[in-house]
Amino acid sequence: MMAVPDPTTIDDLPTPALVIEQSVFEANLEAMDAVRPGTKLRPHVKAFKSTAMAARLAADGHTAFCCATPREVEGLVLAGLGRDVLLANESLDVARLGTLAGDGDLEANITIAIDSDATLDAAITGGVRSVLIDVEVGLPRCGCDPADAGRLADRARAVGLDVRGVMGYEGHLMMVEDRVERIERVESSMALLLAAAADVGGDIVSGGGTGTFDTNTWCTEIQAGSYTLLDTDYAKLDLPFEIALNVLGTVVSVSSKGWMIADTGLKSMGMDHGNPTWEGGDLFFLSDEHATLLPPEISDWSVGDRVRLQPAHIDPTIAKHEHLWLIDGDNIVDRWAIDLRYW
Amino acid sequence: MMAVPDPTTIDDLPTPALVIEQSVFEANLEAMDAVRPGTKLRPHVKAFKSTAMAARLAADGHTAFCCATPREVEGLVLAGLGRDVLLANESLDVARLGTLAGDGDLEANITIAIDSDATLDAAITGGVRSVLIDVEVGLPRCGCDPADAGRLADRARAVGLDVRGVMGYEGHLMMVEDRVERIERVESSMALLLAAAADVGGDIVSGGGTGTFDTNTWCTEIQAGSYTLLDTDYAKLDLPFEIALNVLGTVVSVSSKGWMIADTGLKSMGMDHGNPTWEGGDLFFLSDEHATLLPPEISDWSVGDRVRLQPAHIDPTIAKHEHLWLIDGDNIVDRWAIDLRYW
Repeated sequence: MMAVPDPTTIDDLPTPALVIEQSVFEANLEAMDAVRPGTKLRPHVKAFKSTAMAARLAADGHTAFCCATPREVEGLVLAGLGRDVLLANESLDVARLGTLAGDGDLEANITIAIDSDATLDAAITGGVRSVLIDVEVGLPRCGCDPADAGRLADRARAVGLDVRGVMGYEGHLMMVEDRVERIERVESSMALLLAAAADVGGDIVSGGGTGTFDTNTWCTEIQAGSYTLLDTDYAKLDLPFEIALNVLGTVVSVSSKGWMIADTGLKSMGMDHGNPTWEGGDLFFLSDEHATLLPPEISDWSVGDRVRLQPAHIDPTIAKHEHLWLIDGDNIVDRWAIDLRYW
Repeated sequence: MMAVPDPTTIDDLPTPALVIEQSVFEANLEAMDAVRPGTKLRPHVKAFKSTAMAARLAADGHTAFCCATPREVEGLVLAGLGRDVLLANESLDVARLGTLAGDGDLEANITIAIDSDATLDAAITGGVRSVLIDVEVGLPRCGCDPADAGRLADRARAVGLDVRGVMGYEGHLMMVEDRVERIERVESSMALLLAAAADVGGDIVSGGGTGTFDTNTWCTEIQAGSYTLLDTDYAKLDLPFEIALNVLGTVVSVSSKGWMIADTGLKSMGMDHGNPTWEGGDLFFLSDEHATLLPPEISDWSVGDRVRLQPAHIDPTIAKHEHLWLIDGDNIVDRWAIDLRYW
């Protein structure tokens, strides 16, 4: 752990600020560990973009990570967390990763996803030596036709690459609320992936996410990150995780007309899943640097009071900030840099 | 201008990247200058968060700026652009600005908005010596009751502050599409502000924005920033500005099912006003690091092709990036740091 920084309590925190309830965060990690210990989980750092948090997960035995951007991979490797890092995404900007993988001092083992001849060519010319074949399993996004996976694997092996297996992300099923329906649909989706895995070979069948961490029993490892902190979107599901992340704000204006303004605007919040939730009352609307809040009794509130908003989507929320502040009650127990932002 | 950086053409730009069509940007500046020359415009740096762009506007005579955050004020002052900077927002975190204002070497003239006794107290104890009285003119956000403005001004002057006038933001009227209706409603809104101005005194009546830059004829200065680059939301109005900012992306995956994936995900885009626009076809959906695009003919597209998306809201889009790249055709002519992010 880092030395406890100044400020020491949340009353002194400049706002808006991201605060993590340490006890809730730790309980989330335990709930995941109970189902997905060690490398049965491949934490997805895209959710939290912090090498400090990744190091915390590695300390529990989750030593293999996955990433959505080359910069996330670079950051993990340079922080000494590159023992087994997967770029679970297609990219042509991979020569920088090949350079890292070729540096013996870094002891980095970098694998990238490929789903086409073009991305395989980028891996070859970029000097990345390990790949997973990314297979489309129902989400209209990246991933090859399952029928093409074996051919890509053969081509990769023919030029000497290590083909470690397959990945396929059933992202379209993360938010299926009915658990029985979710299991059935994940099974159908994973049948596509397993068929491709049979053609491809290798040890890894990677997929899943926070929404299917326990219902996807077909993958050898689950790519999940949101479970660490959760958000109001995932909180709708029947998951054993709780919301640990809040955006802390300061009330800067109180109107006798019944509304008040906090400095937790939309520049501090991922808005793609809609407005955050304020448990103290209704949220009227957000602007760039303001949240207009409607408390039950405006007379209860004064300029300088603090509020906490729960974001609807943690990934883009965290990507807008510089730090995560771990708190225990009102005390700040650690500050983690969000050092894996950008691309 | 900075030296032209590496890369020199957009083909070499890592993506996602923010690119500005220099000719469109310059035309936007000219269109604004024609109506609001010099300090009749107070450019709002919250839109673009770049001291380099602010310096470009200052070179045209727009030497007075407004800001939404203390950090924006600090950045302008430390970049030598602090001759007349307004924090057009309520904040309790203003002692840092008082320190800057008190440093004679910086030649900074900092004014902050106040709308309550508490924010006036913060200005006094924080050492900021100039204020505007912020008046609520119909937008449910900051601003005092117009009837209270004179009292706050008297209290401020009684302790020796310079009360420069009033501000009031008719943000609820920016997007009124019918021009005649917009003018009528802005006039009603500004009647509230002018009544408060009569009570407050001072030279400044500050308000407006890109949507009312020419229809708000009651303010002595207009607070506008979006006009520089525009977005698809403002482009709906009858304004003489064009979209100059695009998010440049790379196609990383092409599916025979008819969709393709660019690396311009929602972490590279302000999403509060909805999806960006892709002129090459339909945008299906965005995820954290992906845009799923539906071109008319998928066979026209290959991995490695570039796409440009027009964001719906530039302010939060820019706040997610490190640089603005000015381009002339395919050539990069400058790189501006987005150095005023965070709070």
